[in-house]
Amino acid sequence: MASESGKLWGGRFVGTVDPIMEKFNSSIAYDRHLWEVDVQGSKAYSRGLEKAGLLTKAEMDQILRGLDKVAEEWAQGTFKLNPNDEDIHTANERRLKELIGETAGKLHTGRSRNDQVVTDLRLWMRQNCSKLSALLRELIRTMVDRAEAERDVLFPGYTHLQRAQPIRWSHWILSHAVALTRDSERLLEVQKRVNVLPLGSGAIAGNPLGVDRELLRAELNFGAITLNSMDATSERDFVAEFLFWASLCMTHLSRMAEDLILYGTKEFSFVQLSDAYSTGSSLMPQKKNPDSLELIRSKAGRVFGRCAGLLMTLKGLPSTYNKDLQEDKEAVFEVSDTMSAVLQVATGVISTLQIHRDNMARALSPDMLATDLAYYLVRKGMPFRQAHEASGKAVFMAETKGVALNQLSLKDLQTISPLFSGDVSRVWDYSHSVEQYAALGGTAHSSVDWQIGQVSCECHRASLHETGENGQSWQGERKVGDLKLPDFKTYHKATVIRMV
Amino acid sequence: MASESGKLWGGRFVGTVDPIMEKFNSSIAYDRHLWEVDVQGSKAYSRGLEKAGLLTKAEMDQILRGLDKVAEEWAQGTFKLNPNDEDIHTANERRLKELIGETAGKLHTGRSRNDQVVTDLRLWMRQNCSKLSALLRELIRTMVDRAEAERDVLFPGYTHLQRAQPIRWSHWILSHAVALTRDSERLLEVQKRVNVLPLGSGAIAGNPLGVDRELLRAELNFGAITLNSMDATSERDFVAEFLFWASLCMTHLSRMAEDLILYGTKEFSFVQLSDAYSTGSSLMPQKKNPDSLELIRSKAGRVFGRCAGLLMTLKGLPSTYNKDLQEDKEAVFEVSDTMSAVLQVATGVISTLQIHRDNMARALSPDMLATDLAYYLVRKGMPFRQAHEASGKAVFMAETKGVALNQLSLKDLQTISPLFSGDVSRVWDYSHSVEQYAALGGTAHSSVDWQIGQVSCECHRASLHETGENGQSWQGERKVGDLKLPDFKTYHKATVIRMV
Amino acid sequence: MASESGKLWGGRFVGTVDPIMEKFNSSIAYDRHLWEVDVQGSKAYSRGLEKAGLLTKAEMDQILRGLDKVAEEWAQGTFKLNPNDEDIHTANERRLKELIGETAGKLHTGRSRNDQVVTDLRLWMRQNCSKLSALLRELIRTMVDRAEAERDVLFPGYTHLQRAQPIRWSHWILSHAVALTRDSERLLEVQKRVNVLPLGSGAIAGNPLGVDRELLRAELNFGAITLNSMDATSERDFVAEFLFWASLCMTHLSRMAEDLILYGTKEFSFVQLSDAYSTGSSLMPQKKNPDSLELIRSKAGRVFGRCAGLLMTLKGLPSTYNKDLQEDKEAVFEVSDTMSAVLQVATGVISTLQIHRDNMARALSPDMLATDLAYYLVRKGMPFRQAHEASGKAVFMAETKGVALNQLSLKDLQTISPLFSGDVSRVWDYSHSVEQYAALGGTAHSSVDWQIGQVSCECHRASLHETGENGQSWQGERKVGDLKLPDFKTYHKATVIRMV
Amino acid sequence: MASESGKLWGGRFVGTVDPIMEKFNSSIAYDRHLWEVDVQGSKAYSRGLEKAGLLTKAEMDQILRGLDKVAEEWAQGTFKLNPNDEDIHTANERRLKELIGETAGKLHTGRSRNDQVVTDLRLWMRQNCSKLSALLRELIRTMVDRAEAERDVLFPGYTHLQRAQPIRWSHWILSHAVALTRDSERLLEVQKRVNVLPLGSGAIAGNPLGVDRELLRAELNFGAITLNSMDATSERDFVAEFLFWASLCMTHLSRMAEDLILYGTKEFSFVQLSDAYSTGSSLMPQKKNPDSLELIRSKAGRVFGRCAGLLMTLKGLPSTYNKDLQEDKEAVFEVSDTMSAVLQVATGVISTLQIHRDNMARALSPDMLATDLAYYLVRKGMPFRQAHEASGKAVFMAETKGVALNQLSLKDLQTISPLFSGDVSRVWDYSHSVEQYAALGGTAHSSVDWQIGQVSCECHRASLHETGENGQSWQGERKVGDLKLPDFKTYHKATVIRMV
Repeated sequence: MASESGKLWGGRFVGTVDPIMEKFNSSIAYDRHLWEVDVQGSKAYSRGLEKAGLLTKAEMDQILRGLDKVAEEWAQGTFKLNPNDEDIHTANERRLKELIGETAGKLHTGRSRNDQVVTDLRLWMRQNCSKLSALLRELIRTMVDRAEAERDVLFPGYTHLQRAQPIRWSHWILSHAVALTRDSERLLEVQKRVNVLPLGSGAIAGNPLGVDRELLRAELNFGAITLNSMDATSERDFVAEFLFWASLCMTHLSRMAEDLILYGTKEFSFVQLSDAYSTGSSLMPQKKNPDSLELIRSKAGRVFGRCAGLLMTLKGLPSTYNKDLQEDKEAVFEVSDTMSAVLQVATGVISTLQIHRDNMARALSPDMLATDLAYYLVRKGMPFRQAHEASGKAVFMAETKGVALNQLSLKDLQTISPLFSGDVSRVWDYSHSVEQYAALGGTAHSSVDWQIGQVSCECHRASLHETGENGQSWQGERKVGDLKLPDFKTYHKATVIRMV
Repeated sequence: MASESGKLWGGRFVGTVDPIMEKFNSSIAYDRHLWEVDVQGSKAYSRGLEKAGLLTKAEMDQILRGLDKVAEEWAQGTFKLNPNDEDIHTANERRLKELIGETAGKLHTGRSRNDQVVTDLRLWMRQNCSKLSALLRELIRTMVDRAEAERDVLFPGYTHLQRAQPIRWSHWILSHAVALTRDSERLLEVQKRVNVLPLGSGAIAGNPLGVDRELLRAELNFGAITLNSMDATSERDFVAEFLFWASLCMTHLSRMAEDLILYGTKEFSFVQLSDAYSTGSSLMPQKKNPDSLELIRSKAGRVFGRCAGLLMTLKGLPSTYNKDLQEDKEAVFEVSDTMSAVLQVATGVISTLQIHRDNMARALSPDMLATDLAYYLVRKGMPFRQAHEASGKAVFMAETKGVALNQLSLKDLQTISPLFSGDVSRVWDYSHSVEQYAALGGTAHSSVDWQIGQVSCECHRASLHETGENGQSWQGERKVGDLKLPDFKTYHKATVIRMV
Repeated sequence: MASESGKLWGGRFVGTVDPIMEKFNSSIAYDRHLWEVDVQGSKAYSRGLEKAGLLTKAEMDQILRGLDKVAEEWAQGTFKLNPNDEDIHTANERRLKELIGETAGKLHTGRSRNDQVVTDLRLWMRQNCSKLSALLRELIRTMVDRAEAERDVLFPGYTHLQRAQPIRWSHWILSHAVALTRDSERLLEVQKRVNVLPLGSGAIAGNPLGVDRELLRAELNFGAITLNSMDATSERDFVAEFLFWASLCMTHLSRMAEDLILYGTKEFSFVQLSDAYSTGSSLMPQKKNPDSLELIRSKAGRVFGRCAGLLMTLKGLPSTYNKDLQEDKEAVFEVSDTMSAVLQVATGVISTLQIHRDNMARALSPDMLATDLAYYLVRKGMPFRQAHEASGKAVFMAETKGVALNQLSLKDLQTISPLFSGDVSRVWDYSHSVEQYAALGGTAHSSVDWQIGQVSCECHRASLHETGENGQSWQGERKVGDLKLPDFKTYHKATVIRMV
Repeated sequence: MASESGKLWGGRFVGTVDPIMEKFNSSIAYDRHLWEVDVQGSKAYSRGLEKAGLLTKAEMDQILRGLDKVAEEWAQGTFKLNPNDEDIHTANERRLKELIGETAGKLHTGRSRNDQVVTDLRLWMRQNCSKLSALLRELIRTMVDRAEAERDVLFPGYTHLQRAQPIRWSHWILSHAVALTRDSERLLEVQKRVNVLPLGSGAIAGNPLGVDRELLRAELNFGAITLNSMDATSERDFVAEFLFWASLCMTHLSRMAEDLILYGTKEFSFVQLSDAYSTGSSLMPQKKNPDSLELIRSKAGRVFGRCAGLLMTLKGLPSTYNKDLQEDKEAVFEVSDTMSAVLQVATGVISTLQIHRDNMARALSPDMLATDLAYYLVRKGMPFRQAHEASGKAVFMAETKGVALNQLSLKDLQTISPLFSGDVSRVWDYSHSVEQYAALGGTAHSSVDWQIGQVSCECHRASLHETGENGQSWQGERKVGDLKLPDFKTYHKATVIRMV
């Protein structure tokens, strides 16, 4: 036999142990991050065993004290890993046995690493998602504050990166805040599905020893228990969902970063990054580069790569636990760290960004009012298609004459349409322009206020319904009434439907 | 000037029109699928214009009748496209004008293709998601029916594709049904975010003509209106979410397909595909290949590819509408078609699959009861770690003696542990084995029944809360009481939390 | 039995035939594109059969004539598909039989659809890659022509989108052309691996009838034959490589498109797209949008999505042919069409683009010469780090004084360093600046010329070595000497190493 | 001003320094892996500066000695990082200055971190690719050795995971070795493009100080120099190509792993993993799981995720260096480590795998000879389509009678076709069957030998042409004649074409 006799088929030497395989197989290098939740899960499980009569009260207490000691060693940095500790579960149980003796061997009764590891991961993610959720809301609130304070600043709105229409700077800020509000809503949904307990599923067939999974759920404050032991130990939907949540959120942030990078170019000169979020050049003394924003933009790729990687790993995998699933944790840890940094840096960037109001104002030009000119004619009764054409003719006429659109004389305009009269001058006022866009969602003052209210309300709602680090929903602890909410009767109906 | 004078820089000739560019830019080849929702959206919009005083009642009626005629032509296949109809919006408005004259030119007042196209796409997706949701539930129900009928069939449960423990065949079916139930839940959430109205956002700044977006929402039965016009016209979260929903669902189906392909091999011989879902070989007369399952497995790649493609397209895109967003529709159409076919084929496969009970039974072997043997000792008081080791010794002893694990004599076993006694014979009964796994989620009869109840309940809940094709939630129309629901008090708490 | 008795498990009705499955399984909707190469392959194969004594000369002739007739029907659009023609191979053989009778049944001797389809696909891709290769070279040549003609235009070079140093416009053009040159080189390598013949591999085990694969190779002008029949029928490396080639090429084009979109904004105003590659707005009369460039940028996502999809489909697939592989063709067809359009549109855009030299010149500012100012000091003997710091001080001083960097007096500068003297005025000349960057690859005139030579040479080399549509290398047909090549002795060594 | 006054917009406090931003921006945590190549590059650059007259001989010697000391500190683990060392370049230059004083400030003359970092990365990758290339060849050789030794073992070949035809076990091994041979070929091409020197490109515009890039190239043994400074500092094609190379290679290994996992199931029982590459279960004492193979399969996802991530990061990025590119290194390091482990573990698995010849033989069944039965009739003159049908009838007859296909009597067969005669018994010999497949690439003995020769030859060729760690091609150092190559005249032509 090849492996026994050492007869090799030309490959590198392999004895009974291949150190490269050992390292390849071991997960302790990263799953040690789970030490705290692993102890937490084991403590709950030992309570379940006691209730089921598999541990005496004394044994349980011994185990609980032992586990607390293990946790203390981790917390104080004194936990010593053995070379044989291939994962955090093995390490913690090994240490427990050293501390309390043979009783430790009862802890794993009816449990498998298959249900243990996924319980640990869910506990860890619950805690972490809660932190990310708070960081995300802090970013949104920073944006909303800023939008509220700078409502009177106008600047060009772009489509296709071509100047389109005058808008409020706050309208731009809110366009990104609204996108992040959806991310906040989605994260709640992910958290809901993270917050389901798989413990008690064993390796595949379930638990045969009368362990009460409802008790375990209550001990660990999960919102529900998993339905099927085969699925529970091998599904990683909650991981995939989390990675996709992060990917979509990063896509939003990459778009905001792109805008700000552009607005911060010499050519646009609308904004200037704080020094804390810029860096210089090793070669060019005059440069100040928006590294923070570039890194945010780039991380969209990295985060999505992890999502793509996990889905590919899952594709076509046979049922139940396969070692392939070990790939889940590093993806979660890396993406969590990335999101945490990105959200905080983005908050820092937004809260310290300078805006150049004068440049913004200067960038508005009369041709951006061509649509308003068409609407002027529409209001005088001309069908929009004709009005659009008439306005287009005015634009062309101004170009031909080499003047700005608002410098065409009334007579000039009347050659295009007799509907033009003296009141056309009103069209050329940018402040007047934006105030016309008063339908909900538009750039008028009233609509921007409405948006601020809506986003604040969503943020608040999210903080109320979120599942906290300990698995408890915060509802009831805070009151909606704490926040002076805007009137939002229009949106109200939608919210009701959403809530079903 | 290059473009005017025709002076070229070595490239292929380009006059004022480049036919390749025309085709490259045109979307009519695929967005014609939107004809119906485009008409639907325009009808609602004309009502909004009338309410805002921009159309007279007579003009509105003229437009409504004209649009009905346009729809009729599409429905009857008599609509004729012009070479200049670059997209469905242009085509429909062009035809409307031919039918009713200049009044048609008033329809687009205050509207942009930017808000029009995304309204159309949302309407289309709402309708389509509703169909997919129903197909998904049909698949789940088929699986549940089958699980209910075949509860008494036992076969090997595998982990790492190695035989692990005896389980119920129904437990396997339910492990996949439970995964699909999560897909059903997630689709509801996607539908909720699809069901938000962007119309009235214009090109970027909003609507300046007093159009009442709440009225538009009500006309089109949307659940909410978008909050910010810049975001509304350029965010494609709902598309990305849909594509990811499909990707994750396909991952589940790819895993089920993989299992069934394996179970259908000569070596496993647990199941046999109906002829309707197999094909023969052009070369090997004896072959019957599981093409249906292989195609399901493979589509996971295609569908995810679309998701990856869209996210990459969105990454780093500047704010608001850019033509890049035109990539959204083909992805949605292709993935919708694929999901529709896959769900129906999967339902067909499951509903016609034959199982070979005898082979399943024969595949159970005593070594799969080694865990139960350990639990036997645990019940006699031995700590699990020792029991696991003792059971391992028994396995090794049996291997050494060349006998099955259950053929070791009591005396043999007692050399391993004195705790073994005559009642160990009970361990070797597979039916007894599975019944031990009675904790919720396990493979015991009672737990399988509980799972069936839970999945049925989820399915029913989904059908109640789903947003239908016309945007109405079905709640109230059907009663939960129609279905005899199982007792699910344990899960109940979770459900309550979920519902917040 | 489920399928026979019609007993259903709650699913939709399924008889012996499920029309949705039929359509799901059928590939004729897209693999009909292979009609020509399928006939080509079959003709070669019938010659192989004749040589092996499996067809008489008369039978072969009959088959060849029949196949020509089949091809003629396709070419003339008169080929009629039957409902049972599930793929192009079945369709063509079915038609052949109708045309020539039972002899048609001999054509498939020893052949399987497994080796047939992959032969067809390779033939199709060989032809198509050759076309794409030519289109890519045309784009590169257009860029090189333009770079040659506009060598004297200077404008700002950006890093981090911040103005960095003055560069030649041609240097920018060439930076993208050089990237495309690598794509051209890579495509050659892909073509080399496409150009390998799998025919004669049967379904899995090979060909048992003495068919001479070397003869088949020669008939079809392939460069080599596949080595292993199991691998040959199931590997799709050449497809994955092609899709990745396209993805990377699109990444390059997306970056060029991004630059041009920025340069075409009002704020930069460096370039203006020809009308043929822009479109207007349905709402805003003054807008001209760079749709062509946005579409190019967006297609990077779509193309990569196909690459990702295929790789996911391949991941973990068991050996040899599985129906999953049917996913390959649509990906290839779609990506080929996309690349063909993108390359032609890009060529059109580049060849008709207007540049605004004045704006380019105006955008140069003295602070972009800060690096040169540091080099000035370096040339006077100051260590670079100190010079960089000194130049930084000058930048700061100018900012503080509110003057341009070149308006600091000599006295001002001398407060920073005594090394400054009158000749510092030379630094402020942009033309002088760029000419300093004369090391190979820099922005000096001589280096730009060298680059033009190198890229032209690479392009020419590619056209010589490329495997043409008929599988023949073009080497020998054209002479390198036809093109007046620049001196490229430095690069020469690299080329030699590359050629091994 | 926001950043100066500390006025915040609701966000977390940010002073002049944000520690999270510092960490977010810093790359030293991972780019420290580049310490050796960074020193190597700097040494070459200081020689270039001396040649260009920017350093005296004494200064150069001082710098060279200082750099050697820096390297020594790294090698001995005594290098101490400062908090301000944001990247390896800064760290090394900072330390150099501490060691040798102000002269250190001359080293960066004309250089930018933009060209420095990409030079470092190319040097690192050249070294690493060379190692991976050797590991890949070792794996291939192990497979070839094994294929050579076990040529006489027959077992079922599968398509669609259904038993198809008898093949040689060696044919299966070679099917995977051949795929890896393409990976070896592709890696050579990647290495060729890695082996190009960007140093001397500066930040964007090139080098203005007369540094001779050809000299730098020679110093660092690169094969060529980059053509355009803007492209050179910002293209990461070589990274993308490497990541895709790894992804495709992993796809191959995932397919081989999948096969072996299946072959190692109880149901197949063809192979058994060495204990060194299996692990046990924490719950089920009887289990031995193929963790090594599962991990290999799963890594295909992770590696591809990195490829996807990088391409998304690159998509739409503006020209030249942007901080986004900092994402390249972690991807390269992680993927290199993964590939190194995977290739070694795969070699270990293959070299120690046990095969169960008896089970393999037992798995062959007469119905797998149905194709041969058809060919029997073809040889007697029946058109293949009829023969295929006749053989199908025989299969059906055997099934109906409940006997094996080879147990049909001659009389039975003759009811299907009169062409059957006594010599049909020869068909039922599996060894005879495989020997028929003698066309090149088939499963006959001669063809398997030919394949072994081809793969060995490719492996040898790769080792000759590879660019080694120091950038030198190995050609000339080893002789092709060292290896007794098989006759490969057929393939020879292809090789010649390939070599152009």
